[in-house]
Amino acid sequence: MFRPPPTRRISEMSWEPGVWDVLSNCCWAGVVSFSGTMPTLRFLPFSILLGVVGILCVGLTGFWCYHWRGGFGWDGTARMFNWHPVFMVTGMVVLYGAAALVYRLPLSRRGSKLPWKLLHAALALVAFLLAVLGLVAVFSYHKTRTIANMYSLHSWVGLTAVVLFSCQWLMGFSTFLLPWAPTWLRGLYKPIHVFFGCAIFMLAIAASISGINEKLFFSLNNATVLYSSLPPEAWFANTLGLLIVVLGWMVLWALSKPAWKRPELDSPEAQQPLLEEDK
Amino acid sequence: MFRPPPTRRISEMSWEPGVWDVLSNCCWAGVVSFSGTMPTLRFLPFSILLGVVGILCVGLTGFWCYHWRGGFGWDGTARMFNWHPVFMVTGMVVLYGAAALVYRLPLSRRGSKLPWKLLHAALALVAFLLAVLGLVAVFSYHKTRTIANMYSLHSWVGLTAVVLFSCQWLMGFSTFLLPWAPTWLRGLYKPIHVFFGCAIFMLAIAASISGINEKLFFSLNNATVLYSSLPPEAWFANTLGLLIVVLGWMVLWALSKPAWKRPELDSPEAQQPLLEEDK
Repeated sequence: MFRPPPTRRISEMSWEPGVWDVLSNCCWAGVVSFSGTMPTLRFLPFSILLGVVGILCVGLTGFWCYHWRGGFGWDGTARMFNWHPVFMVTGMVVLYGAAALVYRLPLSRRGSKLPWKLLHAALALVAFLLAVLGLVAVFSYHKTRTIANMYSLHSWVGLTAVVLFSCQWLMGFSTFLLPWAPTWLRGLYKPIHVFFGCAIFMLAIAASISGINEKLFFSLNNATVLYSSLPPEAWFANTLGLLIVVLGWMVLWALSKPAWKRPELDSPEAQQPLLEEDK
Repeated sequence: MFRPPPTRRISEMSWEPGVWDVLSNCCWAGVVSFSGTMPTLRFLPFSILLGVVGILCVGLTGFWCYHWRGGFGWDGTARMFNWHPVFMVTGMVVLYGAAALVYRLPLSRRGSKLPWKLLHAALALVAFLLAVLGLVAVFSYHKTRTIANMYSLHSWVGLTAVVLFSCQWLMGFSTFLLPWAPTWLRGLYKPIHVFFGCAIFMLAIAASISGINEKLFFSLNNATVLYSSLPPEAWFANTLGLLIVVLGWMVLWALSKPAWKRPELDSPEAQQPLLEEDK
């Protein structure tokens, strides 16, 4: 019969392992490590969970648009608009989050930093291209239906996020990958790049929440299907909104953990720009 | 005639002050300090700027509701609803941000930590009470007008923020101020408290953006004043939304700066709970 261990004060604990300690360690070793008294979630299970949440965010956005909003097309109709949330969530939330976490991969700590810089820049570039496609989708739909552009706060916040993200990418590329930025400028710009990375990501989350909210008010507005009666679509998309928030929190949690940060060696190699790889 | 100094490489610079260096230092000393090659904005001018932005956020929210939405009342009408954005922005954004930054005040580094803990808890409590009043305002208005409660994503995100904020306050109070939490528990909970402090703040910003967006769609919906025609009210409230984002960024910037963090001494005094002050 299973018996929990007797309650013990921390000061009474010894390092002699009992049955409980062994069982407990076996169960937790895969997901949690201990640093002093502070339990630390391991990076790999956290990443798997984050990947699942990310895939769910993209999948649920796609399912919402496919199942309730008429599916997808590239013809200027509402079916074209449906690419907007899918591309925006995939690019500005999920791939953006993945790009931000590249330097947290344990593998990135070994050898040259350059491949990881390239992966970081490539993921961010794909995220940006998807965001541009997402903007094309909504502007084309507005043009076909003669709907005004850029009036809602959602559109202001969202476009600000995309424009700042493009500046962030260009600044990052020209400072950290191209050869002409001196070391002092890289050191000066790096904390700004890191901060705005988080700040624009937050803006993208706020744009997602206000965008889903706005879309539901537009769509669920007739006598049979009102947003205020919380039909299944409203439950579904509201839950998707909360899941996007959870994804945002997980990314920021991973970024904020000192133990997961890549040690900065300040070596010439760590400062190595793209075009000087062979030097 | 004013002449800028000749361009010099960093390596050529010496510490011999010229006219330009003296003038430049006089101009910048008030707002910027230098740590190595990295310029650092001083805390005091940053705080003044943050205070101005905070007051502007509250003032502009009040002005929006007063000038365009019919003013204030406590009578279940739309005038009662108008307290909702004012209380929420004042409590969950401005006072919350102020509470989060208490330990960044240079004064908090001297002497006992206890008064600063009390100020942090008090500001957060006032923020929470204002949020509760903000919820009372919207629920009373909905009751009078028989409008459904808690269906929009804005309401889900906003209520989640308020509920988590109440948990955060209770956990912080019982762990850091009351005497029964052991030191190891405080050490364990502190990074979680700090992370959720930022995470809930982000949620409050997202709730503000989606709330302003939703309110403008509700209010600017007749033939003469359409949100999509961007009347002055829409410009005003959209700008307010962006200002709230700027405030959020400034708070997170101040929190993220290592130089502004209170050094943790891990002394018994630093761990001192409220009810053991005289021991």
